[in-house]
Amino acid sequence: MTDDFQTKLRKLAELSVRFGLNIQPGQELFISAPTAALQLVRLISEEAYKAGATAVIPFFADDEITLAKFRSGSEAAIDHAPAWLFEALGAQLKTGKTARLAIAGDTPGLLADQDPGRVARASRAQSTASRPFLDAIVGNHTNWNIVPFVTPGWAAKVFADDAPDAAEARLWRHVFRATRVDQPDPVAAWRENFAELYRRRDALNAADFSALHFTGGGTDLTVGLAAGHRWIGGGMTRGAGIEYAPNLPTEEVFTMPDRNRTEGRAVFTKPAAIAGTIVEGLVVEFSDGKATRISADSGEEVARQYFTTDEGASRLGEVALVSNSSPIAASGTLFLNTLFDENAGCHIAFGNAYEMNLREGVKDKAAMNKSQIHHDCMIGHAALDVTGMDRQGRQVPVMRGGEFVI
Amino acid sequence: MTDDFQTKLRKLAELSVRFGLNIQPGQELFISAPTAALQLVRLISEEAYKAGATAVIPFFADDEITLAKFRSGSEAAIDHAPAWLFEALGAQLKTGKTARLAIAGDTPGLLADQDPGRVARASRAQSTASRPFLDAIVGNHTNWNIVPFVTPGWAAKVFADDAPDAAEARLWRHVFRATRVDQPDPVAAWRENFAELYRRRDALNAADFSALHFTGGGTDLTVGLAAGHRWIGGGMTRGAGIEYAPNLPTEEVFTMPDRNRTEGRAVFTKPAAIAGTIVEGLVVEFSDGKATRISADSGEEVARQYFTTDEGASRLGEVALVSNSSPIAASGTLFLNTLFDENAGCHIAFGNAYEMNLREGVKDKAAMNKSQIHHDCMIGHAALDVTGMDRQGRQVPVMRGGEFVI
Repeated sequence: MTDDFQTKLRKLAELSVRFGLNIQPGQELFISAPTAALQLVRLISEEAYKAGATAVIPFFADDEITLAKFRSGSEAAIDHAPAWLFEALGAQLKTGKTARLAIAGDTPGLLADQDPGRVARASRAQSTASRPFLDAIVGNHTNWNIVPFVTPGWAAKVFADDAPDAAEARLWRHVFRATRVDQPDPVAAWRENFAELYRRRDALNAADFSALHFTGGGTDLTVGLAAGHRWIGGGMTRGAGIEYAPNLPTEEVFTMPDRNRTEGRAVFTKPAAIAGTIVEGLVVEFSDGKATRISADSGEEVARQYFTTDEGASRLGEVALVSNSSPIAASGTLFLNTLFDENAGCHIAFGNAYEMNLREGVKDKAAMNKSQIHHDCMIGHAALDVTGMDRQGRQVPVMRGGEFVI
Repeated sequence: MTDDFQTKLRKLAELSVRFGLNIQPGQELFISAPTAALQLVRLISEEAYKAGATAVIPFFADDEITLAKFRSGSEAAIDHAPAWLFEALGAQLKTGKTARLAIAGDTPGLLADQDPGRVARASRAQSTASRPFLDAIVGNHTNWNIVPFVTPGWAAKVFADDAPDAAEARLWRHVFRATRVDQPDPVAAWRENFAELYRRRDALNAADFSALHFTGGGTDLTVGLAAGHRWIGGGMTRGAGIEYAPNLPTEEVFTMPDRNRTEGRAVFTKPAAIAGTIVEGLVVEFSDGKATRISADSGEEVARQYFTTDEGASRLGEVALVSNSSPIAASGTLFLNTLFDENAGCHIAFGNAYEMNLREGVKDKAAMNKSQIHHDCMIGHAALDVTGMDRQGRQVPVMRGGEFVI
C-alpha cells in the first residue's frame, strides 16, 4: 500500500506499545494475532524492543487452520483444547513479567457453514481451557492491550459490496479514525477522550445507583447494579502505578450488574458474532437476572446454546454506557467486531463479571456473575434513554436520546 | 504455483503426518515453522486432523521479528529467552500426548550483519532456555518429525545467482527429490531406503568398534566410540510401538563418540550455519576429545564463541556415516540447511549426545557428552575413507572413497 498507509500503521504500532500497553523495560510481550496481521506484528515487535521488551512471543491464529478442525477433525478434536498451554500462559501473565497484546481482525461468521452443535461444543472446550489465561488478563495482573488490524476476511464481511482492495482501504480509514491514528498526536487525542470518560465514570460512581432503566426502541430493561459496584472507563492502572489502555479504541464506561436483578426485555440493535456465527435480530427477556426467552432472526440456535454454556452464561456480567455520538457510532458502520461495535453504543454482556468492577473491600460478592463466557451485546441506539434509580427510589436522567445528560 | 506443485506439497504434508510423525488419534500436534511456510502448515493441519489429532498448535518464527531483536533490542533482551514457555512445552511433550513437527526453512546467514558477540549471547540464552524442550524431543518421549519448506530467504541463499522465482522452483525440485515426494509412492520409497540404513546399522552394531578412523582430504581423525554405543538410522520407535521417522530426508546412521577419545584433525567440507552466520573453511584439531584449535576462513569468531558455549560444546556428541552417493550428495548442491547437508556426507556433531545412542543397561555414562548445543559439521567427501578399529587393534574397512564397504 502507500507510504501514508505505512506511516499510519507504524503510528498504530507505536500507540499500542507506548500508550496502550505502556510496556516496561524488562517485560516480555506475548502477542496473539491473525496470520494476516503479520505486518503489524512485525512493527509492534520492533517498537516493543525499542521500548525495552526482552522477548516478543507471537502466537498466530489462522482461519484455514481453524476451519480444518471443523472440516476434518474428529468428535474428540471438537471437544478438546490445549489446556496446558493456557495454564502456562495464565501463570506467566499473572507474574506481570509478560505483557499481552491481542490484534483483533477475526473474520466474522467464519464458522457460519459449520454444524452449530460442533461450533458450540468447540467454543465451550476453548472457553474452559482458556479460563486461566483470561482470568490473568481481566484480573489486572499485567498490562494488556487490544488493537485492530484490517484482515481481508474482516473487510470482505463489513463492506461486502466493495471489491476486496476497496473494502480493505475503506475499513482502514474507519480504523485509523477510530484509533485516532489519523490525528497528528494520537496519544494527546486519547488523553482528551479519556478525560471525558473519567468525568462520566466519576459522576456515575458518585451517584451510586441501585439500578439502570433502559427504554426505547422496544427495549424496556431494568439492570440492577451490584452493591459496591464501581464504574471504570478509559485507562487502567496495575501494580506499581503502570497506566495502560486495554482497548483501543474505547468509548465506554462500564460496571457490574447484580446477577439476580435484571428484569424485562432487551432488543439488540446490532448483529452479534457468537462462536463464529452472526446472530441477527436477537431479543432476550430476563426474569430474576436470568435470560428466560431467547429469539433471533438468524443464528438463534447458536445463541441459545452459547448462552447456556453454563449457569452464568444466561446472566449479565457487565453493563456499559456509550455516547451515541462517539466516532464509531457516528460512522454508522456495522463493524462485526466487538472492539468497534461495543463502542458504538450502550451494551450489556452475558457471562463473566470483572472483579475490578467492585470497590475494594466489598465482601459480599453474591451479585458477581461467573461464567466461562463473556459476550457483549449492543442495545444502544439514537432514541435510547437511560435512567438511574437510587436506593430511595428516586429517578435521575443519565442518558437521553443516546447522549449523556449526567 | 502450479497444480503439480500443490499436489506435491500435499504429498509432503501427508508423508510428514502419516509416515514421519505417525500421529496417533487423540494426540495434539505442536508445529514450529517459519511464517513463510504457512501454506504447508495449513496442509499439515488438515492432514493431522484427518488422522485424528485433537488440536494443532502452530508456533511461527519470523525473520523480521528475529532481526528486530538484534536491531532494536536492549542488552537485557539479547541475554533473555522465555524459559517458562519452553518448560511448559517440554513438560507437555514428555507426556507423549503432543507430537512435534518442525518445518525447516530458515534463512541461512540471517544474522551475518549483526554483532557476533550479541549473536553468541542470544544463542546461549536460547539454548539454555530451550533445553527442557529439546531434551523432551531427543529423549524419544514423543513422536516428532522435521520436514523442509522452501522459503524465499532460503532459496535466495542457495541459488544466489537465480531470480527469486527460479531459485525457489529449483530448490523445490531438490526438496521434492530428496524427500521422495516426486516418486509415485513416497512411503514405499522411504521403506526401501530405511531397509538399507537398517542393514548398515546392524552391521556396525555387530562390529562394535572401539573407534573410527577418518582419512582423506586433509582429515586425519580418530573418533573413539563410547563403550556400549548403539548405531541408529532411519526410523525410531517410542512407547507402545509407535514407529516414526524424525528426519525427512534422512540418509545417515549415527552413534555416540566417547567425549574424551577424539584425536587429530578434521577438515570440514561444507560451510556450517552457526548462530545465524555462515562459517566457511572450518578446521578443528582435537586432543583428548576436546577441540583445541579452531580456525575458519570466515565466521571464525562466531564458531569459536559457539564451541565454547559450555565445556561440552568443544567435544563431540555424535558421529554419523552417510554414503556419498545419497541423493542429496549426488545433487552436488550446498543447501545451507542441516536437514539436507548432514545427509550429504559423513559428519560429526559438537555438543550434546543422544542417550538413545547407548544400549539399554549401560551404567557407565562417563563417555556421554553434555552440552546446551548440538551442531552437525560435515567431513564427508568423495575420497573419504573410514576404518573401524576393534578392541583387539584390528582394522576393518567401513567406507572407501565415500561409499560403504561393510
